Amino acid sequence: MQAEPIDGAAAIGQSGGPTAVINQSLVGVIEGLRGFKNITKIYGMRHGVAGLTRGELVDLTDISQEKLDLVARTPSAALGSTRDKPDEDYCARIVEACREHDIRYYFYIGGNDSSDACRIVNEIAANSGYELRCFHVPKTVDNDLMENDHTPGYPSAARFVATAFMADGRDNASLPGIKINVVMGRHAGFLTAASVLARRDENDGPHLIYLPEVPFEMDRFVEDVDRVFSKVGRCQIAVSEGIQDESGEAIGAKLISAADRDAHGNVQLSGSGALGDQLASLLKAKLTPAGGKPPRVRADTFGYLQRCWPDASPIDAQEARGSGRHAAHLAARGDRDGSVAIKRIEGPDGEYHCEFKRVELSAVAAKTRLMPREFIGGHNDVTQAFVAYARPLVGELPEFGRL
Amino acid sequence: MQAEPIDGAAAIGQSGGPTAVINQSLVGVIEGLRGFKNITKIYGMRHGVAGLTRGELVDLTDISQEKLDLVARTPSAALGSTRDKPDEDYCARIVEACREHDIRYYFYIGGNDSSDACRIVNEIAANSGYELRCFHVPKTVDNDLMENDHTPGYPSAARFVATAFMADGRDNASLPGIKINVVMGRHAGFLTAASVLARRDENDGPHLIYLPEVPFEMDRFVEDVDRVFSKVGRCQIAVSEGIQDESGEAIGAKLISAADRDAHGNVQLSGSGALGDQLASLLKAKLTPAGGKPPRVRADTFGYLQRCWPDASPIDAQEARGSGRHAAHLAARGDRDGSVAIKRIEGPDGEYHCEFKRVELSAVAAKTRLMPREFIGGHNDVTQAFVAYARPLVGELPEFGRL
Repeated sequence: MQAEPIDGAAAIGQSGGPTAVINQSLVGVIEGLRGFKNITKIYGMRHGVAGLTRGELVDLTDISQEKLDLVARTPSAALGSTRDKPDEDYCARIVEACREHDIRYYFYIGGNDSSDACRIVNEIAANSGYELRCFHVPKTVDNDLMENDHTPGYPSAARFVATAFMADGRDNASLPGIKINVVMGRHAGFLTAASVLARRDENDGPHLIYLPEVPFEMDRFVEDVDRVFSKVGRCQIAVSEGIQDESGEAIGAKLISAADRDAHGNVQLSGSGALGDQLASLLKAKLTPAGGKPPRVRADTFGYLQRCWPDASPIDAQEARGSGRHAAHLAARGDRDGSVAIKRIEGPDGEYHCEFKRVELSAVAAKTRLMPREFIGGHNDVTQAFVAYARPLVGELPEFGRL
Repeated sequence: MQAEPIDGAAAIGQSGGPTAVINQSLVGVIEGLRGFKNITKIYGMRHGVAGLTRGELVDLTDISQEKLDLVARTPSAALGSTRDKPDEDYCARIVEACREHDIRYYFYIGGNDSSDACRIVNEIAANSGYELRCFHVPKTVDNDLMENDHTPGYPSAARFVATAFMADGRDNASLPGIKINVVMGRHAGFLTAASVLARRDENDGPHLIYLPEVPFEMDRFVEDVDRVFSKVGRCQIAVSEGIQDESGEAIGAKLISAADRDAHGNVQLSGSGALGDQLASLLKAKLTPAGGKPPRVRADTFGYLQRCWPDASPIDAQEARGSGRHAAHLAARGDRDGSVAIKRIEGPDGEYHCEFKRVELSAVAAKTRLMPREFIGGHNDVTQAFVAYARPLVGELPEFGRL
């Protein structure tokens, strides 16, 4: 049931880990709102809900298209982001701040924690009799939102990971050894899986891919590496920062001393090289032949560059913009709330298309989507179904020559 | 004194850590040799001198220009590289292998260790009465070769570092905290210094830059970070992997347990996150207010992506190709040996140009060039003179928008 439009301001916030295209979504919402005459003002929240509750708003109503286009191409959250996870009390202050600034349209760009906060704000506003329309715009490099074929931010991060594995694979072939690359993704292995797109020839890496969805066994890992290294003379390995043991405990968390926890209770896995370094030490110790030299083992942790590298996938840039616009259109057509989701449509010749649809906030809020079973290939690989899924998203990858 | 050309084969090898443009130099040598009618064959050494002494050669004489162009654009050593540092005995086997394959022109693309090996091979050949013309083509992301304004490989790695600091700087502004980025460079700080190119606005990072040329003092480091963090609310830090204490001992080497040493006796500093992680732990411990929460501190170690990222600086690609061609021209004009060096020429309007010159192998061999004093700004920064030096090398950097 559509509601009558209500006059008032709109506020847009960005939350959680930034991406290469989160500003595309911001600009998409602004563009979408411009044709909507009930909007009296467009505010940006400085550092999401943290800034909103302190009244830190920036007026985006009259910003030029030229400036918008430049901001859209800029990685990371131009408004600033936040890791705050609002509880009921915090959400009440959010609603209060909206009331104070006559904000009637609330847009929040973020992941599953953000959509949950959006859902709570929506409820509190409704219960307190303040009419506030709440919309969530998807964003996460982890690609772990329910209802979405994939999420804005993921294709660009996947593009970085695939490119990095291609380049690092040539480096590894040039100076052969065992190379571990640790990839972001706390619970979902989609980003680590994207490393597979680096494979071109039979002997190309990644030779082994370890996802958080498959319990990680140390002995089996050593055996896997030993087998590949003996056969190929080198071994390039993709490891998710979120790999877990049989009991569900993150291997990285065990290894990171003085582990940070953020406001969501999540252990800090990014911004540390501990997991890669520990796995490298282990391999060196286990694979040194009796009386012989240890193999050359190196570990890189790709870190924050994965989520902000300024070479977005063109499809991702377009879809992030589109999902922001779609959220504004939902508001304009009289929806009271909702989250935008991306649905994939195959064209008549199997080519890739997508469309946006509205889903309930509660369908996305605080839930985590993992790699589906058909994408997982045994305990150390992904399937061709995953390759077919991921390839159209990342855009054109560089072509390499060999001798 | 120029020598008469001698009929025979040419062999080209690639050595040491690969770069984004080391294949440009390989292709440059091949192209340069094509017009030189005394060349009977062009061989590539598989994994440098290691392959040559085992007779592992690939015939590059008739490779198509199309293939060459594709290989040139591909990062990392297409022939394979090696870390072998040949001693006298090894060099004698190299000369033996050359004799066996009628190789009269020897081209070796690499850093200061490679030019030293080239020098020894040259001497042994001369002493054993085998006429062999030996040429060194410069390559190193560390930019630490004597006689060169800069070295092929450096501008592309500097481009990666500058781009990474720009993107990571937006990430750091978006979710404020203390961020350490560890950059390659064992003795010379040129690559770490390139992070300065990320600065656009007054509050932009990197706020602090630590080079191996300036003794690193832990207490002063903590004070520096505290001061910036208190003032700006965040702090982005560039740290060279090669930072040393007053006595010249590498801070990273002290922290990396079970440190590897390569055949050159160098401790492994890359391929580990230990330095960044330890500095992050230290800052967290020292900057936590009494009874308060620790600041958000993260560390990324850029690792091998710095040297192989497939987005070469256009000037670097051109100069790497040109230096390879120039080495071939030295051979064609009758030089017996030499190393190619890059000399900078300022155009009439101050614009950047370069030219190639021949220098003695001994002028480059086994020597290390450090950051000159006029590029170093106190104990935690670089100067405008360095910015003026580095800016023309890296090519155009992305333009970012802000709100």
